[in-house]
Amino acid sequence: MYKKIRRVLVGRPLKNEALNDQKMGVLWGLPILSSDAISSVAYAGQEVLMVLIPVIGLGAYRQMSFISVSIICLLMLLMLSYRQIIDSYPNGGGAFVVAKENLGIHAGVTAGAALAVDYILTVAVSISSGVEQFTTAFKEFKPYSVLIACALVVLLMIGNLRGIRESSRIFGIPAYLFIFGIVIMIVWGIINIKRGYVPPPPKNMPAVVEPLSIILILRAFSNGCTALTGVEAVSNAVPNFKNPSKKYAKRVLFLLSMIILILFGGSSVLANLYKVNPQGNAMLVLIAEEIFGHGFMFYYITATTFIILVMAANTAYSGFPMLISLMAKEGYAPRQLSMRGDRLSYDNGIILLSIVASILMIIFKAKVTSLLGLYAIGVFISFTLAQTGMFVKWKNSQEKGWKYKAVINGIGAVVTAIVVVIIAFTKFEEGAWLVVILIPVLIFMVFKVKKHYNAVMRQLRLKPEEIAEFDINKAVYTNRVIVPIESINRSSLRALRYARTISENVVAFSVAIDDESAKKIKEKYDALNIDIPLITKYSPFRRVVDPLLKFIESAEYDYQNGDMITVILPQFAVKKWWHKILHNNTRYYIERELLKHKHIVVSVMPLQLRDDDFVLNNPKYD
Amino acid sequence: MYKKIRRVLVGRPLKNEALNDQKMGVLWGLPILSSDAISSVAYAGQEVLMVLIPVIGLGAYRQMSFISVSIICLLMLLMLSYRQIIDSYPNGGGAFVVAKENLGIHAGVTAGAALAVDYILTVAVSISSGVEQFTTAFKEFKPYSVLIACALVVLLMIGNLRGIRESSRIFGIPAYLFIFGIVIMIVWGIINIKRGYVPPPPKNMPAVVEPLSIILILRAFSNGCTALTGVEAVSNAVPNFKNPSKKYAKRVLFLLSMIILILFGGSSVLANLYKVNPQGNAMLVLIAEEIFGHGFMFYYITATTFIILVMAANTAYSGFPMLISLMAKEGYAPRQLSMRGDRLSYDNGIILLSIVASILMIIFKAKVTSLLGLYAIGVFISFTLAQTGMFVKWKNSQEKGWKYKAVINGIGAVVTAIVVVIIAFTKFEEGAWLVVILIPVLIFMVFKVKKHYNAVMRQLRLKPEEIAEFDINKAVYTNRVIVPIESINRSSLRALRYARTISENVVAFSVAIDDESAKKIKEKYDALNIDIPLITKYSPFRRVVDPLLKFIESAEYDYQNGDMITVILPQFAVKKWWHKILHNNTRYYIERELLKHKHIVVSVMPLQLRDDDFVLNNPKYD
Repeated sequence: MYKKIRRVLVGRPLKNEALNDQKMGVLWGLPILSSDAISSVAYAGQEVLMVLIPVIGLGAYRQMSFISVSIICLLMLLMLSYRQIIDSYPNGGGAFVVAKENLGIHAGVTAGAALAVDYILTVAVSISSGVEQFTTAFKEFKPYSVLIACALVVLLMIGNLRGIRESSRIFGIPAYLFIFGIVIMIVWGIINIKRGYVPPPPKNMPAVVEPLSIILILRAFSNGCTALTGVEAVSNAVPNFKNPSKKYAKRVLFLLSMIILILFGGSSVLANLYKVNPQGNAMLVLIAEEIFGHGFMFYYITATTFIILVMAANTAYSGFPMLISLMAKEGYAPRQLSMRGDRLSYDNGIILLSIVASILMIIFKAKVTSLLGLYAIGVFISFTLAQTGMFVKWKNSQEKGWKYKAVINGIGAVVTAIVVVIIAFTKFEEGAWLVVILIPVLIFMVFKVKKHYNAVMRQLRLKPEEIAEFDINKAVYTNRVIVPIESINRSSLRALRYARTISENVVAFSVAIDDESAKKIKEKYDALNIDIPLITKYSPFRRVVDPLLKFIESAEYDYQNGDMITVILPQFAVKKWWHKILHNNTRYYIERELLKHKHIVVSVMPLQLRDDDFVLNNPKYD
Repeated sequence: MYKKIRRVLVGRPLKNEALNDQKMGVLWGLPILSSDAISSVAYAGQEVLMVLIPVIGLGAYRQMSFISVSIICLLMLLMLSYRQIIDSYPNGGGAFVVAKENLGIHAGVTAGAALAVDYILTVAVSISSGVEQFTTAFKEFKPYSVLIACALVVLLMIGNLRGIRESSRIFGIPAYLFIFGIVIMIVWGIINIKRGYVPPPPKNMPAVVEPLSIILILRAFSNGCTALTGVEAVSNAVPNFKNPSKKYAKRVLFLLSMIILILFGGSSVLANLYKVNPQGNAMLVLIAEEIFGHGFMFYYITATTFIILVMAANTAYSGFPMLISLMAKEGYAPRQLSMRGDRLSYDNGIILLSIVASILMIIFKAKVTSLLGLYAIGVFISFTLAQTGMFVKWKNSQEKGWKYKAVINGIGAVVTAIVVVIIAFTKFEEGAWLVVILIPVLIFMVFKVKKHYNAVMRQLRLKPEEIAEFDINKAVYTNRVIVPIESINRSSLRALRYARTISENVVAFSVAIDDESAKKIKEKYDALNIDIPLITKYSPFRRVVDPLLKFIESAEYDYQNGDMITVILPQFAVKKWWHKILHNNTRYYIERELLKHKHIVVSVMPLQLRDDDFVLNNPKYD
């Protein structure tokens, strides 16, 4: 049954060779990797206004223009910097790999942890914003925001468990539809005004409460910076591109930057022209309402914005598992996260991402303004580390033209570092503190994991002289066998017979609750006439493991140091799932306790049970 | 850690000998077994009024008197009938055993299923009513009813997991305090009226809506019958009494009946005198308010009523696990439910009861009126079957004075059967339908379980000629060993060495993802110079189980029918719990798949990992 569910969710397994076939070009790579950055148009500008309007009223629109321009400059700088990373690191991994190779493992792990946190927030913020678009247009669904958000995460999880290419195809088309729609809206909106349309005065616009302050501008700027999260996704995902992957990746990065420029800049212009006051509603939907009324284009903008935000969350679904698996392969995360799943995606990372993002959305009630306090700081930490790493790399390489390249990455490093400080400072109380604590905790855990794998590796490793010493071709110890039996039946006799074939030194072992039952089993056993001795122990606590271990340690058993003891446990293999609960599953408990002892091997001997009806209708079993 | 939690919850394990010491006499047996019946005073009368008042207004009180008298007659009849059951069945089991032995297994299982359903409802109804007492006195807690109810069930569960005697001592005293308090209230309330006190006219009393109808009276009567649930608990629990257990049990049954008579009758008289209108509040608390105002006795009645209702739920905690374990011992329920736990109680039954009762309370929002639709039908089915069984028993025995005894049980059977029909008919739409469906479903499941155990028993059983044929002293087959290896390390070499000691016929088996990795492991393996052949298979799906099974079936392996194949799987035994998630737990998956094949034994070989710090600081491992 489990297999069937899995088949439905994940689809049929793919061979290794199919891997290259799953890779993407510009046409599908652009929508799947850029949707995070593109979709932030839906909340970045809006949240800039939500900071400014309550304090400086109408003055907010003017300040928004300045902030938008500076963010677009930042975008251009990042694009130039990341082009150089794509060229130097065609195998992907982005900040983690770049920082690790050039600045050392601590910087690498820091970048990795910061980025991991940000991927999770990408899912939480994008989905929450998507739901906000929807509930701005359809207000009656507002009370169900959290539920809708979690349902969307589950859908994304299933989609991604089914594999990369299918997701890019399904998710590619709406991204283009979104870009198309917003461009139409920008053009139409500007023409409208040029033709003399005068928008109604903004509603609920507060008067100036305080004078404009640097700190206010910086807080608004911090919110605006969320527009730039997702730019790094392209450089992390270079190996996901078809060959020549560097070329495709750079082309996607360039197109992405241009699209953000047009959409983010254009929607800022519209907000300015139409003086929209979001107040916790979705700005793009409000603008569309002003420009198009409740016509087709209004629903078109709402729908495509909603969908592009879901796609944005999907960006994290390609980036996060790849980052984690990269870390896991080097032992910095549980190894399970490094395994490619049936459909060649990273199942465990996908599931982990979904769970953590859902928890965040539940805690913050799927409110974008609340979640935004945590966002962007992680990604700007990783930007800084990656750019610093590149700067060091160029400096050390001294290759032709290194100075020009070092300057670009150097400026990138300094600017993004300043942004980190600005965000951490201005958003500290609004949630950034959580990230500031979480990232060091993650780093600590990551090094603990690495340390453990190191210790395991050293214990497993054999030096050449140890291999000689091991002398595997000689039997260096005696294997002794103990067969715990509850009663005399087919299962216990099979176990005893098996025991004889693997050792000369076998005892049967039974635990009795009282003298009477001890006598009973002894009589039955003796009647079998087996040359294996039966040991019976009385257990006042009705337990098997304790008396067994006590017996092994007793003088009676005469255990020689170095001997191996094999304990044979019978197990019913049942035909129907519900039959499992009908058999005392003490086997698992006994096995777990015994395996804590290094000289004990546990052998599980299955007895295949036949179908109930078959047995009951077969005279052989009467 | 698990063990520590368990120790705190369940206490230290007790020896078998301690069992008799845990048994109860009249002093503690009365409160623990009778609290179900006694406590129903808190809701039975109240729910009679809640049916009558909305339809016939003030006329309800007069009708209530008639109904109370008929219920007290029913109680006397049941007491006489059950005295005879205690005499005939000193080993307990009540309806299940009586019906099974005299009417056949189908009647027995029906009685068992009906009673099991009713025990669950006893917990749900009593706890909900307890919470209702509390929230009638402290209205501000009404919104948290379900939460409080579930918390109480958890407390009861923990208390009962700690064992029988402790619960009876803790829970015994308040039962006496309750009886004392209600008796004081009855006496005081009647004296008050006699001295000329005139109670205020009843509030919100509706006018007569419909004329009095038979069906209305019967519906009210059905609610009143819930006062009698719990009478059977005494006969089920005879083996829980000290010796002479029959004498003690009968004495407790008699005292219990007298107490119900006084409390139920007396509180009906008070409701009548003071014209209390419950309207979803607790009747006893309202009466106490009228008689005592908000003084000490008001809080005393509220508190002791609350506590006695919790004790009533506790009755089910002694009755349900014993009933289920009785059925489980004969194979009619999963065997786990037959095991005595560490503290000599039936842990699994206790946990099951708690879970199902909590689910019911959550669904019905802990409302007594809603839950009462499901209640009492189960227990009256079991009454009917037990009495019918006793009637048949006397008829067949023809012992001295059998006619007199048969008449008592015969009347009991007929009357309780009529009550079953009345309840099922009048409460069908209010929830009885659920029970009417649930009981047959349970019966079906019970027989499925029994059938499975039968089939297993037949497969395990060995006839004398089969034992001879088994010929355990001869090795009748070859044991072959396969050691799957991932890489060459200490763990895999240990497994290979162990393999050599248990068989002459060993192969090492490795799965490679591509040719390169296959070549690599082959080279390393050859360098070891072992005389065990290495088989390498290429797996496009990166799986171990499928290629291994395919190899076993291949001509290359030359498997002879009847041979046993032992597959050795290494397993890390880790020092810290979180280390478990760091190792690919594919072992469990592989084991599960392999154990589906009857000729395969899985041997788990533990490698004890040392502490990380120890390894990393030890030059031996450098």
